[in-house]
Amino acid sequence: MASGDSVSPPAAPRTPPLTDRPELAARTVALLRTKSALFDLDEAEARCIVDYMRVVNLPRGATVFREGDAARTDHLLLILAGDVSVDMSDGDRVDGLPVSVLGPGSVVGEMALLDGGPRSATCTAMNDVIAAGISRAGLQRLAHEHPQVALRLMVAIAQRVGDRLRALGEQLRLYARLNAEQAARLAELERR
Amino acid sequence: MASGDSVSPPAAPRTPPLTDRPELAARTVALLRTKSALFDLDEAEARCIVDYMRVVNLPRGATVFREGDAARTDHLLLILAGDVSVDMSDGDRVDGLPVSVLGPGSVVGEMALLDGGPRSATCTAMNDVIAAGISRAGLQRLAHEHPQVALRLMVAIAQRVGDRLRALGEQLRLYARLNAEQAARLAELERR
Repeated sequence: MASGDSVSPPAAPRTPPLTDRPELAARTVALLRTKSALFDLDEAEARCIVDYMRVVNLPRGATVFREGDAARTDHLLLILAGDVSVDMSDGDRVDGLPVSVLGPGSVVGEMALLDGGPRSATCTAMNDVIAAGISRAGLQRLAHEHPQVALRLMVAIAQRVGDRLRALGEQLRLYARLNAEQAARLAELERR
Repeated sequence: MASGDSVSPPAAPRTPPLTDRPELAARTVALLRTKSALFDLDEAEARCIVDYMRVVNLPRGATVFREGDAARTDHLLLILAGDVSVDMSDGDRVDGLPVSVLGPGSVVGEMALLDGGPRSATCTAMNDVIAAGISRAGLQRLAHEHPQVALRLMVAIAQRVGDRLRALGEQLRLYARLNAEQAARLAELERR
């Protein structure tokens, strides 16, 4: 930390281990537990995962992830408190396209973590957010030390990605319906 | 198979083990292999998974999955040859909302397999489709016998769900842009 002559970007600030904060650890266990048709993630497994996580505090307005960022893709977050907005840029529109708002129990940042691709959306803390973070290295260590637990975590993550896919499908349906209505109205006006 | 007085729906037709068809098994191995930023799924692991899969043949026009179906959610398919269209119903529209076309290497049916929820879209074979299928029971057996391999398969599946999420996001962006253009045109026409 004393060296100031490095040209590489500063390392992510060290955040405390989640086990340092028993009340947050308990909350994480409760939120990690997942009913699945494939494998449930139970309390003992959730406790095991907590050992690999760190506390991440994000003040209101903080950018959690920035769309297109290909550098910082090495961790995912489980939101414990607060809300995160997910927005995609939309060409010239300054404000971007709101995709969703995610609250406690939601996982963000898993896609870039998995495929190493750039962040697919910008996530912003809408209020003070507390999250539990796990890094790629942490996940790999978990997989080595507790493969059955890592598998269940991955199922829980895949299921949450699936939930978002279902939600985005609904949103697409709404847009398509709106498009069809607008097109009909346009055709009517242009006939006049 | 001789009993005809059961009221339960007929069992899924027994399909041959994938290992009975070495050329399809080799194709499956090639398509299962996945580069990931988290864990690659390598050839030896793909060969291990193939032992748990069966061959599924779907003639052109066959409904692979039907949106809303909550009963047959116990398997997923890796497309080996042919194309599958994914469509969502859209209220009164008869034809539905085309979501995507998936070809060899794509996984379909994983979402309902994971969460046990109803099928989220209708998948139709656009031509003769050959797929490799794995059932929920098969996945659970794989996880018990080879947890590290099951974990890597789950990462590969989550990554493919993530790909679809990214693609759907792009589609949403296009719809949003079209909506904005139509709204501007409507406003212009209504001002006249």
